[in-house]
Amino acid sequence: MLTNAEIKRIKSLKDKKFRDQYGQFVVEGEKMVEEALGSAFNVAAVYKESEIGAEAMSRISQLSTPSPVLAVVDKPAPHALALERGLYLGLDSVRDPGNMGTMLRLADWFGISTVFASMDSVEIYNPKVVQSSMGSIFRVSTVYCDLPEICRRFHRDSFPVYGSFLDGQDMYSATLAGEGLIIMGNESNGISSLVSAECSSRLSIPSYADGPTAESLNVATACAIILSEFRRRQR
Amino acid sequence: MLTNAEIKRIKSLKDKKFRDQYGQFVVEGEKMVEEALGSAFNVAAVYKESEIGAEAMSRISQLSTPSPVLAVVDKPAPHALALERGLYLGLDSVRDPGNMGTMLRLADWFGISTVFASMDSVEIYNPKVVQSSMGSIFRVSTVYCDLPEICRRFHRDSFPVYGSFLDGQDMYSATLAGEGLIIMGNESNGISSLVSAECSSRLSIPSYADGPTAESLNVATACAIILSEFRRRQR
Repeated sequence: MLTNAEIKRIKSLKDKKFRDQYGQFVVEGEKMVEEALGSAFNVAAVYKESEIGAEAMSRISQLSTPSPVLAVVDKPAPHALALERGLYLGLDSVRDPGNMGTMLRLADWFGISTVFASMDSVEIYNPKVVQSSMGSIFRVSTVYCDLPEICRRFHRDSFPVYGSFLDGQDMYSATLAGEGLIIMGNESNGISSLVSAECSSRLSIPSYADGPTAESLNVATACAIILSEFRRRQR
Repeated sequence: MLTNAEIKRIKSLKDKKFRDQYGQFVVEGEKMVEEALGSAFNVAAVYKESEIGAEAMSRISQLSTPSPVLAVVDKPAPHALALERGLYLGLDSVRDPGNMGTMLRLADWFGISTVFASMDSVEIYNPKVVQSSMGSIFRVSTVYCDLPEICRRFHRDSFPVYGSFLDGQDMYSATLAGEGLIIMGNESNGISSLVSAECSSRLSIPSYADGPTAESLNVATACAIILSEFRRRQR
């Protein structure tokens, strides 16, 4: 039986404040819990509806329709990072949980092991990020950091820093290396001026519309197109 | 002054049943209303907070934070369609409003003027589709149809029908024509068997992960990558 105190504690993990305090977050659904159990993350507890009952499950779940299983997972400790040759993704103030989760899923698909996120980006243990990443948060390492400083670190190691802009160079005709940092910006404001100043290359996705068209693409779809093009070039 | 009956009628447009009954839908926000006014759609009425007051606006708005302007727009009448040479997008049972809106925005960006959607796809006048399309619903023509029948029409005109599958041919090495129909499937189940049977070419986006990775990509990001690759080939 779950006590009221336990229920309250699990439920509190929907808020970043309590995720920080307890160093834990929640994953829901059979597939996601399976991913957590098979990952390097430590799963602190698993709750099944068949064991705790539907009422208790509906009280600890963050979903409007609770799934049959929920796990409380420990947030991993931050680790020192050695930059190796390869492609990295940098997210500058990405605020929408769905976009963040979708881009982690993209990084996972395109073999990018580490994502750098500015300190004001949405937290990856936010329930909506966890959900939209479809398990990729367990495979892709996300480092919250001072993004301009990380850019300078790439410069020092002579790796290029690419930024996605509306007024950059046509990315299909640009030179794209198989290593370096690719930066995507905020949903409304794009890449901040401090990070923009560190971009060695400014890339754009050209529009193919004849007349008036959308002003921009959603940041996650732009990220998809750019990562695909980098990987295609390496074939 | 808005009467209670008017308020009730506008508010009812959040439901498909009443959008069908009145033949109208709602757009909110200055940019979106501007897009509607500049489009071929007939704007039946515009409501400004400065004229009707904040309380009335909060009652007719479908947003948790109402914007200063809301328009009621007439749904255009369906029109007969002549297939011309070019690229078309087909959506087979896309149910998530955010995905639908994002793919309309992508079609707009990549110069695809007409999107075919199966009858069980989410309606484009759903408020979340309108919002996530960022105005592209006013430029891209969406036709709800019997999708297998549309595929056969492409066959009769000797245009290819491409489907996006998890087990198709590597799309980077596939032959891609500058005309035809590109089909994206349902979020959970992919392309239905009836539509699958009509695909003349099965395409996949290869993963670049070394080890275990995401099982799939989100349908809108997959659509972004595929449309980008078709247009790149036409350069």
